[in-house]
This record gives sequence, structure tokens and C-alpha cells, in this order.
Amino acid sequence: MNAVEIAAAVTSGRTSATAVVADCLARIDRLNPVLNAFTAVLADRAKARAAAMDAAGAKGPLAGVPFAVKNLIDVAGLPTLAGSKINRDHPPATADAPLVTRLEAAGAILVGALNMGEYAYDFTGENAHDGPSRNPHDTKRMSGGSSGGSGSAVGGELVPLALGSDTNGSIRVPSSFCGLFGLKPTYGRLTRAGSFPFVSSLDHLGPLTRSVADLAVSYDAMQGFDPADPACVDRPADPVSGLLDHGIGGLRIATADGYFRTGASAEALTALDAVAKALGASETVTIPQAERARSAAYIITTAEGAALHLDRLRTRPDDFDADVRDRLIAGTLMPAVAVVQAQKFRRRYQADVLRLFEHVDAILAPATPSVAPLIGQKTFVLDGKEMLLRPNIGIYTQPISFIGLPVVAVPVPTAAGLPIGVQIITAPWREDVALRIARALETNGVAVAPTAKLEG
Amino acid sequence: MNAVEIAAAVTSGRTSATAVVADCLARIDRLNPVLNAFTAVLADRAKARAAAMDAAGAKGPLAGVPFAVKNLIDVAGLPTLAGSKINRDHPPATADAPLVTRLEAAGAILVGALNMGEYAYDFTGENAHDGPSRNPHDTKRMSGGSSGGSGSAVGGELVPLALGSDTNGSIRVPSSFCGLFGLKPTYGRLTRAGSFPFVSSLDHLGPLTRSVADLAVSYDAMQGFDPADPACVDRPADPVSGLLDHGIGGLRIATADGYFRTGASAEALTALDAVAKALGASETVTIPQAERARSAAYIITTAEGAALHLDRLRTRPDDFDADVRDRLIAGTLMPAVAVVQAQKFRRRYQADVLRLFEHVDAILAPATPSVAPLIGQKTFVLDGKEMLLRPNIGIYTQPISFIGLPVVAVPVPTAAGLPIGVQIITAPWREDVALRIARALETNGVAVAPTAKLEG
Repeated sequence: MNAVEIAAAVTSGRTSATAVVADCLARIDRLNPVLNAFTAVLADRAKARAAAMDAAGAKGPLAGVPFAVKNLIDVAGLPTLAGSKINRDHPPATADAPLVTRLEAAGAILVGALNMGEYAYDFTGENAHDGPSRNPHDTKRMSGGSSGGSGSAVGGELVPLALGSDTNGSIRVPSSFCGLFGLKPTYGRLTRAGSFPFVSSLDHLGPLTRSVADLAVSYDAMQGFDPADPACVDRPADPVSGLLDHGIGGLRIATADGYFRTGASAEALTALDAVAKALGASETVTIPQAERARSAAYIITTAEGAALHLDRLRTRPDDFDADVRDRLIAGTLMPAVAVVQAQKFRRRYQADVLRLFEHVDAILAPATPSVAPLIGQKTFVLDGKEMLLRPNIGIYTQPISFIGLPVVAVPVPTAAGLPIGVQIITAPWREDVALRIARALETNGVAVAPTAKLEG
Repeated sequence: MNAVEIAAAVTSGRTSATAVVADCLARIDRLNPVLNAFTAVLADRAKARAAAMDAAGAKGPLAGVPFAVKNLIDVAGLPTLAGSKINRDHPPATADAPLVTRLEAAGAILVGALNMGEYAYDFTGENAHDGPSRNPHDTKRMSGGSSGGSGSAVGGELVPLALGSDTNGSIRVPSSFCGLFGLKPTYGRLTRAGSFPFVSSLDHLGPLTRSVADLAVSYDAMQGFDPADPACVDRPADPVSGLLDHGIGGLRIATADGYFRTGASAEALTALDAVAKALGASETVTIPQAERARSAAYIITTAEGAALHLDRLRTRPDDFDADVRDRLIAGTLMPAVAVVQAQKFRRRYQADVLRLFEHVDAILAPATPSVAPLIGQKTFVLDGKEMLLRPNIGIYTQPISFIGLPVVAVPVPTAAGLPIGVQIITAPWREDVALRIARALETNGVAVAPTAKLEG
């Protein structure tokens, strides 16, 4: 059952939070050894909370809904690993992150913390310390990263809802590979207080689910200003759950051309074109200088990442995954002028892209160039050339998060049997538009979260 | 006559704009060869405008007031030099900068463009291409920089009003050395459109005058949102001219201690203490981590400056002043992690300093460690040690502009016969408080712009 179905069943008395949690924990017990999605399961906490809710009369739009969070989000009593070995030595968090508290206030029940790429500097879902989280649709394949455990846990139906983070694509890539709906909200919308940072000017938190309604309900539960995150924008919440069925009449939807088709696999293009056709989106639009935006996002990411980890690189170099460490060390060598120029470019690029939204309401683009590669695979073919896989998985997501635009990634089935994602990109604060379009695609069956065949 | 006195005489018919301009141009002719304040005198433009104003009936709060602008501000028909040799090859500006237009809309009359330190990377007022602008109170001494021509022209009463720019102190230092009132407004208050940049996140424009009323009236004329400057904040103007005589009753005024007294000369401390005593400001306050703020401002300045001039450093290294070029080249070697950490520190420091304003309304600090040094002087004694002069002139201004706080610098006479400035620092958008305090000091004679003895 999806999150809103569980909440309806619990609040109507057809089932109890206790029964939901018991089923959830049993499924985690059976399948997590296969998927490696969780790094901590909080069975006692979840059962206690379910019992208390049942005793008090469970209520809320997420009543009794089990959820889990990427392990860079604070959970009281757990060290906030952020996928690292080094953070295992940190003291446990003394409080839950605000987003956990807000989801619980809506009735949801936290059941655990999820595997992720080290320090979120990852697109694969592989982790040198915890092992790779696995793709529920083919466990030999990558979950995608860095919110790999989030994609794996929701794709494998261990939980209907997980939180991830997205700096350059880390929600949208696992959504694409694992066949999920994923929301990267507008930069500054959801508080990041109580989460381990990566690149402050690019970090976003958001949900991954198996339905558009679940995305909207969980997103609504998490909205609201929080002064504890300096980037959180002080503006009223814009609830979207009630707007999903407003339809897409009158919306001007275009497909990104040029850069956003170059290098895309046949599966990615077929999925994109199917979505465009279903939406009657025959126009195309050019996002100017997207390739340069990707370079600039890289420069800012590696420099800010290096600055964040400088002390750890000095004192504990051997405790990093060597690949992550070497990317961060490369960042320490970045000259400041490159970062300054990348920041300047970002302002111009943002202004240019925002102007596009005077003429369109949403832009469609692939989420990833291909379906999920095999775990351990180092290269893939991109635009006819064998290229390093890891840095190139995010070519279509990086230029969008770089300027904080909201995106819903929707899952589309492919002939190969694996899902692939399409990004629905809108103007800032117009998550409602992206979600209405996602709902239209879900309703007509073009976007659907496939069921994983993990048992018997 | 000061600006408001001229405007009163012109609007009442006691004199004409034409007569004011003729006197002004004659004085520039006589004294600019001594002061070297102007790089361009716009006699024809000024005379034509004065004649047109007289014909139409001169009006406005600055009716008939001659003014001049630092030559990094666009003036139609002039190349915008920004103190450089290289920009002499630029085509002339096709339009005046918005601040020029706004002052003219208030009745002021532009008479020329002013000498400045190359590319504003300067605290001395020396210029390798145009020669040094000179201190009107001792022409062997520095005007201060980088708005040296602005300080020299107003201090020498060639014009009653000049515009300067302040990135790390470039309005407040010449105000201190030349004995003027100078306003560095809140970051984002006055549009910088049509000016040659230095460090976008630190650049401010503002006026230098010989009276508080002139500062307030010109500032009011320049306020107002301008989308052409991305940093300009969209908020209503806060006119201050009508508030000057509201007094300082109830204002909590404190003197900065620690860092802001260390290294100050006897003259600077005597002036500061005289100001504090006149205001009944017996409390002290510690601006935390001011020394680190100065380092961080340096890091950001050199890196952003280097990024801005990278192409020119590559193609025309010999056309820079060698000292300026070498500082910029040093900036190209700055690692990005240092800039990222400086930017992060800035956010924390800003929050810490803003909290001080919950307990005080204004903070007093020296504007410069000493009175104006001799032109060509390379070192001075700071805290008992012989130190390089140029980078250390701004030790008290840099930590304040770094977080965009508004400051009025007021001139205080010293026993040595040269003036020195005191900074009145307030919370963002509270220029009114700083100006009311400046007015109180002007009224009781503690702060006064001395008259230069340049003739006979």
C-alpha cells in the first residue's frame, strides 16, 4: 500500500499503526539483507510510537505510515553517518531533524536510517563501508546515488516513503534507477536543519515515493519556514495536495532540446518522448549554456566539498573511500578564481533560465542518460564514446539543481524491463505545476512505479 | 557654501545655477593643478545644464549644486576609467549611471570625473597613471583611497558633493584623511548600475560632503530600488533629511574596544574618545572576531578581484600599476577552499555582529589608524611595529563593510592640525541613526570639516 492508502486504512480503523509497522519491520527483515538499503532499523522506536498512536487514536494525513531517512538526516540516538566511516565516531544525534519531526506530526512513523554514497558525493549508491544499496528491479544493478538506500527501500516497498538529499541529482538519480516519484523542491523550501551538509548553496532535501499523492502529502507535511536553516526562505507554505487533480489544461509544457538529448540512451529518449506525447507537449525549448552550468556546478561542488572536509582530509585520509577522498583532494587544488567565475556565471544563467518560464510552465528532460548500470561498472557509452560513468550519470540533473529549480522525477517503464526517470522542471515555488503534470502522467499510466519481484 | 546652502540660494534667486557653476569651474581651474582631483572636467555640459536650469526656474533639494563622481561611475561621453590605463581604450559610456541621473533630477549639476586608485584596489589615493590626488590640508600628504579624488575635490571645496565607492573602506578612508563626512550606506541600498565593479559582494557607492545635511539630502536623492543592480534590495526609500534634528535622546551608543583600539595612533584614540564623550557614550562593546573578518575580507577581495581582471592580467600585464597587478596575481593563486571558508565565516560573523545591535543602536570606531601619511610613504608604525602602510590603512573599515553595515564617517580635528575620521556604525537600514548622531556631533562642534588653506 502507498502512504495515503495506509493513512486512510489506519484512520478509518481498517488496520492499526501497530499492524502496519509489524508488517513493515517483517518485510525489512526479509528483504533488507538482499537490498542493503538500511543502515539502522529502529524497531523498538517504531513499535512504541505505533502503539502510542493506536492508543490515542491515530490521525493525520500520514497516520501510521512507516518512513525512513537517508543517514545524513539526524535521528535522535544515532550518529549521523552521512555514508562515512569517519562520522561513526561522532556522538549520537540528540534530536531528530525538523523534517522528521514534521512528518511524525502528520502521523508518520520513523523505522530507520538509510544507506547512501559517502558524504553524498556520489551518483551510484555504492558505499565502501556499508556496501552498495541494490536496485530492487535487478539487484545486480545500482540503486543510484547518493540517496541510494532511499531509492532501494521505497522501490523494494520496504517503506512507502523515504527522505533523500539532492545536491546535483541525488534524489532524481535513484528515483530514475529505482522507478520512483521523487521531488527536489525549490532551493530554500524545506529546512535542512539537522542534516549533514555537502554543498550549502546546492543542498536540497526531499521525498521519494511510489505515487504522486504520497509525494504531495509528505511534501505538504514538511513545508514551513525554519530560521535554523539560513537558506530556508521565509514564505508561507504552498500546500499542493488539494491541487493534484486540477488538471493540466492551459499549461505550456515543452521538452528541453540540445544538451538534454545529447548522450541520452534510446531508453531515455523513448521515455521522454512518451511523456511529451502523453502531455501533448510538441514544443521544444533550449536551456542556454547548460553544459557550462554543469561545469560550474562541478567547480562549486568540488571546492565547497573540499572546504567542508579539509580537516578530515588532513587528519583521516585513510578513512575515506579512496575515490571520494581523491575527488575532494582535487577540490582543494581548485583556484578561487574558478569558483568566483562559476558563482558569477550562476547568477547570469539563473536569470536566463528564469526568462524561459515567461513562455513555458514546465520543461521536460531525462533524469539520467540510461537505466541503472551494473554495480561495479566504471564506464558507459555516452554519445558514442566510452566515458567514466560516475561523473556522467548526473549530466541532466546538475544544470537544474544548480539554480534551485523544483523538479519532480517520474518513473517510466522501458522495453528493457527497467524503469527510467523523466524530469518535470518548473519555475521556483511552482512545485504544484510539476506535481499536477506528474499526476496526469500517473493517471494515464505513462508514469508508474513498477513493482519489484523480490520474493518467490 | 555647502550643497544645501547653494540650493537655497539658487532656488530663492539670490544667485543662479550659472553663477554657481562659473565659480566652481574657476576654482577647479585654479586649484585642480595643485590637488589633481579631477581626471575630466565637463565645463560645457555643466554650463549648458546650468543655463537650462536657470531658464526653466531651478528647483530641487540640490538645485544648482555642482558635483563630481569617482571615475568608475559612468558618465555619458567619457570612458569609465576606474583609475586604470587599460580602460582608456574602452568606448565612452553611452549613458550616465543611475545615481548621476538621480542627483541631477534633484537639481545637481555634474562638473566632472575624479581621480582614484587603480581599479579601486587602493587606500592611498595614489595612481600610477594619473598621479596622486592630494590632501587639501597638506598637499604633500595622501588623499586616501581609493576615492582619493573625491576626498580631495570636496576637501578642497572644488565641489561640495562627490560620489565615491567603498569596498573595504574607500569612502571612509578619504573622508578621514581629507576631513569630510562620508556615508557608506547599507549593502544593497544604492544602485551600482553603471559603475565599474571591484568585488560585487562588497561594493557600495555613496557620497562625501562637508556637512551632515548635504550627506542626507544627496543620499535621499539617490535612494530607490533599481533592478539593474542584482544586489540592490527592493525596499522602499527611507528618507533621512527630515530626521536629522530628532536628536539622539534614547540612543544607546557604545565604543568598539579590543581590535578597534589596537594599533590606533594617539590622534585616532583622542578623536574617538572626544566623540564618545560628546555623545555620553561610556559603554564599550566587543565586535567578535573582527581580526578574522579582516582576513576573510582580504581573501574574498583578492580572489574576486583576480577573477574580475583575469583576462586583463593575461593580455595586458604591463599596463597595470605593478603593485596593483601583483596583488591581483597573488589573488589568482588563492585556493578556492579559502574563499569558501571566508564566505562561510562571513555568514556566522554577520549573525554575531547583528546580535550586538539588540543592545546598542550605534558603535563608534576609528576610521583610520592615523592621520594622512605622506605621499609615497610605504610604511608606518602600527602597534609599535613598522608595518606596510597600504594594506593596514583599512584595518578598522574592512570588518564593517564586510557585512554591509551602514557607516557615517565624521571628521574630527587633531592637535597635529590634520583631521581624522570616526566611524558611526549602525544596524542595516539605519542610516538615519548614524546621521542623527553625526548631526549632533556637528552641532556641538566636535565633528567639523576643516577649511583647507590652498590659496594666498
